Amino acid sequence: MKFYDCTPAPNPRRARMFLAEKGVEVEMIQVDLFAGEQLTDDFKSINPRCTVPVLELNDGKRLTENVGIAIYLEDLVPDPPLLGRNALERAEVASWNARSEFDGIFAVGEAFRNSTPGMKDRALTGTRNFPQLPELVERGTVRASDYLAVLNGHLETREFIATDEYTMADITALVMVDFAAWIKLPIPEDYTNLQRWHEVVSARPSAKA
Amino acid sequence: MKFYDCTPAPNPRRARMFLAEKGVEVEMIQVDLFAGEQLTDDFKSINPRCTVPVLELNDGKRLTENVGIAIYLEDLVPDPPLLGRNALERAEVASWNARSEFDGIFAVGEAFRNSTPGMKDRALTGTRNFPQLPELVERGTVRASDYLAVLNGHLETREFIATDEYTMADITALVMVDFAAWIKLPIPEDYTNLQRWHEVVSARPSAKA
Repeated sequence: MKFYDCTPAPNPRRARMFLAEKGVEVEMIQVDLFAGEQLTDDFKSINPRCTVPVLELNDGKRLTENVGIAIYLEDLVPDPPLLGRNALERAEVASWNARSEFDGIFAVGEAFRNSTPGMKDRALTGTRNFPQLPELVERGTVRASDYLAVLNGHLETREFIATDEYTMADITALVMVDFAAWIKLPIPEDYTNLQRWHEVVSARPSAKA
Repeated sequence: MKFYDCTPAPNPRRARMFLAEKGVEVEMIQVDLFAGEQLTDDFKSINPRCTVPVLELNDGKRLTENVGIAIYLEDLVPDPPLLGRNALERAEVASWNARSEFDGIFAVGEAFRNSTPGMKDRALTGTRNFPQLPELVERGTVRASDYLAVLNGHLETREFIATDEYTMADITALVMVDFAAWIKLPIPEDYTNLQRWHEVVSARPSAKA
């Protein structure tokens, strides 16, 4: 399998961590998002949405969303299970994954993309350029900050995000928390639950994948 | 089971359609989003994210995201399968569901929430008020319009969105297309693939659930 990556970016990191937790090795291909390589015709023929990650299967079929890549890999290598061990766990993993995307990663992305000088017309991912809107910097920062509080509260009574073991929900939340540092939003000192969890999940080899 | 609903709104419609396709009957409870009932302390104790749908299980546990509700119901009532019949199909269903959310429903929601007089401080769902931004009306409309084109192109060679049968990906895409009418974005006359698919999926009893 081939994996289209951009090492510094948050979304492909989620899939790389999933691959690492599963022990799956793939051919890695860098796509230089910072030079706009995702907008070239060559890359559009790989993923018309102009995003990474992309997992290309051995038959040439391509999966271009983190959720799809995870479902495929979970079936290919069932152990360790990262999507939950039963229906209710799978529902919780998918729900927390969705929250960390919408309330977390999208919020940080909103603040980051609307404030970064190199992203003048790239306020959103995708094929089309949209201008930055200064109002979205604060909105994204406030939302991301709220989500750190949600995670900290949620982790008061639990070791991991969605079940009693490490799952994809921890991957997505970790990527969100580390992405929040890009907009100068570290974990507040008094968020001790989130600090403790962050230390544990960051110590896994997959966090450096 | 209990289902917290708001009949006119797009996101609970997705779960209602899923329930209808599975033939699952639940106690329905209306939450008046237009009167701000989701922001009351009573409703916050049900779902702190202040959103519907919410599916409350018989043991009192609550699922508050469409993806989680779908996974739980698919296990409870496996037939007809709505999330795919094998790993690759499940990956495709989840991927198209995610695209119809991010590129579709969120885009329409952006245009709708930032332009509707009754939603002055409700530019986003959730606990916190954010002011409307007029620039987002056009951005959301352009993105939603682009996504209608994506769906029309995708349906040129296929009957349904993600697999060769009706799945959750069709539910989410249908809800997006019908939601787009709220921002006066009907399916263009010459999008004959999308028109044909829309007629087929709208004719299912679940479309009126």
